[in-house]
Amino acid sequence: MPQGQPLTVPDDGLTTRQRRNRPLLMVHTGDGKGKSTAAFGLALRGWNQGWNIGVFQFVKSAKWSVGEQTVLERLGKLHDATGEGGPVEWHKMGSGWSWAKKQGDDDDHALAAAEGWQEIKRRLAAEAHDLYVLDEFTYPIVWGWVDLDDVVTTLRGRPGRQHVVITGRRAAPELLEAADLVTEMTKVKHPMDAGQKGQRGIEW
Amino acid sequence: MPQGQPLTVPDDGLTTRQRRNRPLLMVHTGDGKGKSTAAFGLALRGWNQGWNIGVFQFVKSAKWSVGEQTVLERLGKLHDATGEGGPVEWHKMGSGWSWAKKQGDDDDHALAAAEGWQEIKRRLAAEAHDLYVLDEFTYPIVWGWVDLDDVVTTLRGRPGRQHVVITGRRAAPELLEAADLVTEMTKVKHPMDAGQKGQRGIEW
Repeated sequence: MPQGQPLTVPDDGLTTRQRRNRPLLMVHTGDGKGKSTAAFGLALRGWNQGWNIGVFQFVKSAKWSVGEQTVLERLGKLHDATGEGGPVEWHKMGSGWSWAKKQGDDDDHALAAAEGWQEIKRRLAAEAHDLYVLDEFTYPIVWGWVDLDDVVTTLRGRPGRQHVVITGRRAAPELLEAADLVTEMTKVKHPMDAGQKGQRGIEW
Repeated sequence: MPQGQPLTVPDDGLTTRQRRNRPLLMVHTGDGKGKSTAAFGLALRGWNQGWNIGVFQFVKSAKWSVGEQTVLERLGKLHDATGEGGPVEWHKMGSGWSWAKKQGDDDDHALAAAEGWQEIKRRLAAEAHDLYVLDEFTYPIVWGWVDLDDVVTTLRGRPGRQHVVITGRRAAPELLEAADLVTEMTKVKHPMDAGQKGQRGIEW
């Protein structure tokens, strides 16, 4: 999308540079494809800027993101070896988060989701990453596993210059209200409707 | 997005495997963000599958994709050096396509766009790539620089197993009709509306 000029200039006392560097909360929602893919594309850009990238996947099985994970982790290793780009951490809820001392009960997704959010809160407070991808994070909120007010308050008050992108359907209005940028991906036509199953390279 | 089961099973005589591996024509349209970013995310996945990736950008200035270009070309070099992933070619219309013998008149975008499409036709006939990203390709069609019927006929009749993703606003109905998968990215909220200018890492 062309860069363009802003439609209005806010009376907030900030310089263009300060405004340009404001940390963004982004939400990709809707029932179409591309929500996570576009978020991982942002991570790709951020890596290229030397950003510290943290990906947190709130899904039980993340087969369909294995390609992005492999490549972004490979880029993280490239950073460690050559200094190119930035460091990358990729965490999946799956069967317990990788930072957890003991692997939790696989079936207690509510507990795992709450633990994931607590860790993200700690990292936000410590300004651990430049970009957080909270993939499918709308679902634990919808299901009541993570408290919406806590999420909104924490994200609104996060220190420093930390960008956050949240993906998933059914994003809460309060989350959209707090967001700087919201994109809705709408399914217009999908091959699964015509009997096509997912395929390697496209779906994962 | 979870993989899910198809809603219907078509009576086309194909096995699930044959149907699964069918080449797809994908269109990312709408006035929201993420159309190109999601397409480059697909390229990332394809690279990881060892696919031969060809990116063709039909925009004069592509400052905002420089991050993706740098990373995907870096991954292409990684392939050349280590055999990981697949090869990557990234071509920009900009001031003449890189394959052109002589650089054309910078200002003749109509001619440049037509030349770009002719080259893509040659590559499709030769089955040169596994995934083609035709970024912002809707515009030269809208502006009449590239013939819509020729595009639809060529894409419908392309040989082998070549995936194509086209991005850009105002995609023609005939193109959507020919597509297997269409996603519309809708702008719900954008920081430029609140006076925020584009920023590094987010917009490019």
